Amino acid sequence: MGIHTVKESHLLSDSEVRLGNNEVTLGTSNTTPVWEFRDNEWRLTYGECGETSLIYAKYEKLPLQDFDVEVRPAVDVEQFFNQGHVFLLDDDVAEETYPSSVDLVDMLLNKIGLSTTVVEEAKKILFTHDAASSRTIQATYSPKDKMNGNFAYDESWMCLVGDIPSLVQRHMAIVRFKHPMNMGTTCHDLQLFVLILCPAKEKGTKNALETGRTFATLLADHHLRRQLVEVATEQEFKQLLFNRTRELIEEQHQSRSAVSIKLNAVVEPSPITNTAMSNSIWKLCQFGQGIREDLSRRLPHYVSDYVDGIIGVKTPQKVLSTTFFLYFACLLPAIAFGVLNDHNTHGKIGVKKVIVGQTIGGLFFVIFGGQPLLILLTTAPLALYIKVISSICDDFQLDFYAMYGCVGLWCAFFLLLFSLFNVSRLMRWCTRSTEEIFGLFISIAFCVDAFRDTAKHFQTNFNSPQCLGDVNMTKGLKSSLTYFILNETRTNSSTVETLISAIEEPMAIECNQASSLLFLLLMLGTVWLGVSIFNFKKTPFLSAGKQEALADYALPIAVVTMSFVGSYFFQNVKVEPFRYDDSENVFSLTPLDRLPGLAVVGAMGLGFALSLLIFMDQNISSAMVNTPLNNLKKGPAYHWDLFVMAILTAALSAVGLPWMHALVPHSPLHARALADVEERVHQGHVYQIIVRVRETRLTVLFSHILIGLSILLLPYPLAYIPPAVLNGLFLYVAITGLGGNQMFERITLFFTQQSAYPPNHYIRRVPQPKIHQFTVYQLGQLVLMCLFGFVPWPYMKMIFPLILLSLLPIRHMIITRLIDGRFLTVLDSSEH
Amino acid sequence: MGIHTVKESHLLSDSEVRLGNNEVTLGTSNTTPVWEFRDNEWRLTYGECGETSLIYAKYEKLPLQDFDVEVRPAVDVEQFFNQGHVFLLDDDVAEETYPSSVDLVDMLLNKIGLSTTVVEEAKKILFTHDAASSRTIQATYSPKDKMNGNFAYDESWMCLVGDIPSLVQRHMAIVRFKHPMNMGTTCHDLQLFVLILCPAKEKGTKNALETGRTFATLLADHHLRRQLVEVATEQEFKQLLFNRTRELIEEQHQSRSAVSIKLNAVVEPSPITNTAMSNSIWKLCQFGQGIREDLSRRLPHYVSDYVDGIIGVKTPQKVLSTTFFLYFACLLPAIAFGVLNDHNTHGKIGVKKVIVGQTIGGLFFVIFGGQPLLILLTTAPLALYIKVISSICDDFQLDFYAMYGCVGLWCAFFLLLFSLFNVSRLMRWCTRSTEEIFGLFISIAFCVDAFRDTAKHFQTNFNSPQCLGDVNMTKGLKSSLTYFILNETRTNSSTVETLISAIEEPMAIECNQASSLLFLLLMLGTVWLGVSIFNFKKTPFLSAGKQEALADYALPIAVVTMSFVGSYFFQNVKVEPFRYDDSENVFSLTPLDRLPGLAVVGAMGLGFALSLLIFMDQNISSAMVNTPLNNLKKGPAYHWDLFVMAILTAALSAVGLPWMHALVPHSPLHARALADVEERVHQGHVYQIIVRVRETRLTVLFSHILIGLSILLLPYPLAYIPPAVLNGLFLYVAITGLGGNQMFERITLFFTQQSAYPPNHYIRRVPQPKIHQFTVYQLGQLVLMCLFGFVPWPYMKMIFPLILLSLLPIRHMIITRLIDGRFLTVLDSSEH
Repeated sequence: MGIHTVKESHLLSDSEVRLGNNEVTLGTSNTTPVWEFRDNEWRLTYGECGETSLIYAKYEKLPLQDFDVEVRPAVDVEQFFNQGHVFLLDDDVAEETYPSSVDLVDMLLNKIGLSTTVVEEAKKILFTHDAASSRTIQATYSPKDKMNGNFAYDESWMCLVGDIPSLVQRHMAIVRFKHPMNMGTTCHDLQLFVLILCPAKEKGTKNALETGRTFATLLADHHLRRQLVEVATEQEFKQLLFNRTRELIEEQHQSRSAVSIKLNAVVEPSPITNTAMSNSIWKLCQFGQGIREDLSRRLPHYVSDYVDGIIGVKTPQKVLSTTFFLYFACLLPAIAFGVLNDHNTHGKIGVKKVIVGQTIGGLFFVIFGGQPLLILLTTAPLALYIKVISSICDDFQLDFYAMYGCVGLWCAFFLLLFSLFNVSRLMRWCTRSTEEIFGLFISIAFCVDAFRDTAKHFQTNFNSPQCLGDVNMTKGLKSSLTYFILNETRTNSSTVETLISAIEEPMAIECNQASSLLFLLLMLGTVWLGVSIFNFKKTPFLSAGKQEALADYALPIAVVTMSFVGSYFFQNVKVEPFRYDDSENVFSLTPLDRLPGLAVVGAMGLGFALSLLIFMDQNISSAMVNTPLNNLKKGPAYHWDLFVMAILTAALSAVGLPWMHALVPHSPLHARALADVEERVHQGHVYQIIVRVRETRLTVLFSHILIGLSILLLPYPLAYIPPAVLNGLFLYVAITGLGGNQMFERITLFFTQQSAYPPNHYIRRVPQPKIHQFTVYQLGQLVLMCLFGFVPWPYMKMIFPLILLSLLPIRHMIITRLIDGRFLTVLDSSEH
Repeated sequence: MGIHTVKESHLLSDSEVRLGNNEVTLGTSNTTPVWEFRDNEWRLTYGECGETSLIYAKYEKLPLQDFDVEVRPAVDVEQFFNQGHVFLLDDDVAEETYPSSVDLVDMLLNKIGLSTTVVEEAKKILFTHDAASSRTIQATYSPKDKMNGNFAYDESWMCLVGDIPSLVQRHMAIVRFKHPMNMGTTCHDLQLFVLILCPAKEKGTKNALETGRTFATLLADHHLRRQLVEVATEQEFKQLLFNRTRELIEEQHQSRSAVSIKLNAVVEPSPITNTAMSNSIWKLCQFGQGIREDLSRRLPHYVSDYVDGIIGVKTPQKVLSTTFFLYFACLLPAIAFGVLNDHNTHGKIGVKKVIVGQTIGGLFFVIFGGQPLLILLTTAPLALYIKVISSICDDFQLDFYAMYGCVGLWCAFFLLLFSLFNVSRLMRWCTRSTEEIFGLFISIAFCVDAFRDTAKHFQTNFNSPQCLGDVNMTKGLKSSLTYFILNETRTNSSTVETLISAIEEPMAIECNQASSLLFLLLMLGTVWLGVSIFNFKKTPFLSAGKQEALADYALPIAVVTMSFVGSYFFQNVKVEPFRYDDSENVFSLTPLDRLPGLAVVGAMGLGFALSLLIFMDQNISSAMVNTPLNNLKKGPAYHWDLFVMAILTAALSAVGLPWMHALVPHSPLHARALADVEERVHQGHVYQIIVRVRETRLTVLFSHILIGLSILLLPYPLAYIPPAVLNGLFLYVAITGLGGNQMFERITLFFTQQSAYPPNHYIRRVPQPKIHQFTVYQLGQLVLMCLFGFVPWPYMKMIFPLILLSLLPIRHMIITRLIDGRFLTVLDSSEH
């Protein structure tokens, strides 16, 4: 009886509406509408004919499930095979008992065995007020010669999905009717009905919609549907579905392979095969080949490298803000490492030299280099080499500048060889995972530098013997004073002098706890302020334009503000400005002739190690800038850049200026600062995509001219920048440099709620344990790097470049044996 | 031609599927399915018959628009009247030119005059792959004797909505067909087609869906539709729609009034009318009436007040965490105000007395008081009264305890009168806005206290003459020393002593900059750590349960951690612990007889002012706890609580213990800590709703027993808690106390992006300028309070209670003349 009413009412409304426009709905034309406010809502009724409500419908195309690469579909179907519910209903039973989908779902919920509260909640979520299903998946057909608007629903099956908060476990059920049933709009001939219920706090790839998509993709195949309609038992039904899943995985896999073979004929082969290996060894021998290719690739863009920094939407603003960013991000580390080198070399390489070196190196590279987005700086590892050379010179009484120049020239020689023999081609084995381990290591290194500096400051100013032994000192002073006065009957001028100096001494090297605390305060203040401003775009405040401007100037604002706070508000606190010797000779020509022969041989060893360091850092930085995610158009120039670096290193060494190399995270941050970023939302998760990067030489050019002019600001006002702010800048760079680092993202997944897992490519395609396994292996490599990178013995630190190099064979010889190749490809993909 | 194809194809598919289940769709049964991966997506095709895709549909009931109270609908229709597009299409034109909705929209987009890029983008957003509309609003009908699943679409009209990112202005267009057109599923007889396009970054109440809802509500009325079908010109069409809107506003308004008149017959009349005024004056005179009502309301719940703290889901955990929260939130201010009072009264009321007073007061009130959620504390204004009394006693040589006791007894007397004559009924004029001004003022006061303390610390330790005059001092010492030694030829023991003390002196009162910086560091550290832990639930990390536990213990964790950091890591820094006199006599009976008669009269004045302060603070705190949002079940007890306070004040005064009163934000935070909170999502905005509060006496009972036991921890380890942490606690309480303060929320709206405006009740119902106007008036009142609250002259501060009281007439006499009553009701509603 029930089912007939439904059918009739639908047919009636269908036929009636076709009669004429004055009789739109079931005889409502003669009554007047009545508005009534009930249960916090307006209701519109027409006499006897019931209520009118508004229904808001949202339709989305749902991509067919990828059984080939995604991991969940097969697992979902397997779970259905083991725990799913299948109900094969006979016609007579069906028609009488389940006249509508609500009754049907009612039956299912009870048979599944849910508690009453869950059933009530589920029904509220699954249906709207009018007992219309609230979230469904169906198939549509459109003919090949698609016409606008010409498409039809497949009314023979539907999938109803719901995320139910109080549910603790996923439930899947399928009902089959022997003959088609009329279940309302777009379901006039229903034979298969799928119900998917998931807990609301479920992982993104495991929620009701995703599970429904799996089954919908299977049912989209009408061959399978016809078979499912024929089966006799519920076990057969499940088995059929299970087998079809296997077939589909195979079918999709073969279809995709067929396509990719076609594609591969065009694209270069992947670098991991053996033929590629021998191929590239052969390429190594093509003398100068890489440089020629680089030049032919970059030279045509040379003019546009300047023009692109002027024209274009928002380009002038971006170039200006990036210039200021680079000015602070390069000048401050230059000062910091200048102070460090000054200390390590007893003043032979000081702040002034480092700033001059930075200016010369930056300008030289931005004019002659291939990839202008790279940022050159002198770094902590280079400072270490300089320190080692300095101590060798002390031990063997060698001339520092001579030894320094000699090491540098050897290094330049090796770099030249690397560039001419295309050694940078090795970088094709440097995958995203290696870059990210390196990136994370550098971020850690910056943090370690900052906190080590803080600790050192506390050691000397806060926990100094003067602070700890305050009481004893006073006592000592007292007794010596008493001794003086009581024993010297005759007091003459010199005794007084001694006495006064004895009193003054503890005051001169007084304990300066305040400066240490101020150091901590300013460092934390700088990084907090910088990161807060940088992340201001995540708040709903201010317009989008102002937010972007704030983010662009986050670092300069933080540095200037905290410098002002430190040197104005806390001017009472005695803070030692950095040591600066104005009389210092900037250019000191290397007296190579003063070097004994054995020292030259030793210098070769050091030079080779140094060249490895520069090679690795330069190339990894370059690779991180050239990542496909940055969407660069002008191409890389690994070999040519190395050639330019060789010349630059030779020149810097010859005049005793500090070496430098491209570095992380400044270089990727530079690319990012020049980028236009778009936010894409996918299933509630926001992704940032770089639309374009202004590949220009102007930012580095301008900022380094400013850095050059800053020599005029020495020592004041530059010395007003407290050393703590420099360390705050290191922390800022370390933190913001982690943006987009997937390894870091995956580390946070260890303690992220399952429901907050982003449904991104690797989560979809790699089983979760494998993801974590890969992350753990990466962490292992990171620990290895930290062991050698932060070891307290300088000589051991020098083999660090080799450890870095060893990551490549680890990734391609060991990790490949531990994790399946297809998962590795996904986890280590540079496309996402 | 086109239109016929569409119609036929639909009819075909409709009829075909009814033939039999083996022929589900257009002759696809004989071909095999082909899987192909193209454009990053799987495609499933059946030979000639075109593609199969999945469509995901979400249906939601859309409430009919409330034209009566919401402000946007009328504005939207007016805008349509002025700028909207109407197209009345003849049958022949329509059938030939616009066979489908895609063509129709194409025409509309071009006629509206959008640029090509916008048109392309709009089409992508408005339609799915299959040219199905992606977001629509339609009406459904269900008969009154609703049967499950029995509902029908009104296929005669539809509204298509889209939010288009590149659009700069809203566009509305309506197309009318003279005769029904077949536009596909659920639109077989379309006569009216509405298209709404909005910029994507539009205010929540102005977006495409909300605008569409307005027009859909109008079109849901089939009388209007019939009229619209008949009109001849486009102007007539617009005019009709415009007039109907006016009518609808009237209709809904009358319908609602009819209902509310019926309701008002049951509920008490609103308090702002004149009759209510005289009514309540009459009620004032009903001696003791309020107390009787309170007792009859609360006494039946007395046992459950204890039981509710033991039984229930998660109750033991919540009671435990709240106990610890209260322990720290009450003990620490007690110590802080103890130090302050000790300083102001020259040790007459010290830390020990305040802690004992806190214990006695808290236990007394929680056992005998009416509303156990109130938290009693001695506060800064009370400390001010004590200071004034102390200085009066100094000036006139009065006995402090006698004067203190006399003022307190007068105050108790007035409180008794207030409670017996039901003066708390005045609180019905204290609306949400006044409570929120007060709440914000208290938060500001806590911040001012904390920073004033910091400034004072810096004044004495950081910028002290010893720090500034360092050089001069050393010089002075030097010369005096030289003088001593050179002039005294005979040196004897006493000279040496003088000399040594001269040397030691500058060391004793040495400048302690470090302790000030540590103060700042610990204060900021405490508030940062506390607020970060409190907000940890906003991150995706850790499970929901752990997040909640962290939030519950945020304050204790922050206090303990920073106390440890301060007193362990920085133990070298000399920090003065608070002054504590163990020999202090806790109870000092008031020697009232020592007071001259004139002093007793003066005490009466002070006592009256004090009683006003306690009356206002007590009642506002109580009102904020009893807000409908807290969903309390056991009812308030304003009069009885005041009666208990009178007794308590008398008792405390008699033995010279500090006064106390219920305070903000501790009391509301206490209610919040005992609450179960649920998050509701409405249009992407998350709201928190308090489901239930455990109304128990156990938390205050336990925490105050602990506070009492803490006397044993004096002076150590309690003195290990640095004073800076106490100030950090003030800031923490000030910040977390702002949660749910709508005034604060509205202040942030001043610099919030329009698109981020939450679509809540007042944004919907009050025009935006009026909202801001109201906020500005509130800010004005806040400034007034701050003027009198933070004025540096203590005597002027004492009239603060009167200023506070004056907010009631300001709200009900002045603000009502500036802002329309119906908007005020919405803005000042305590229901949302």
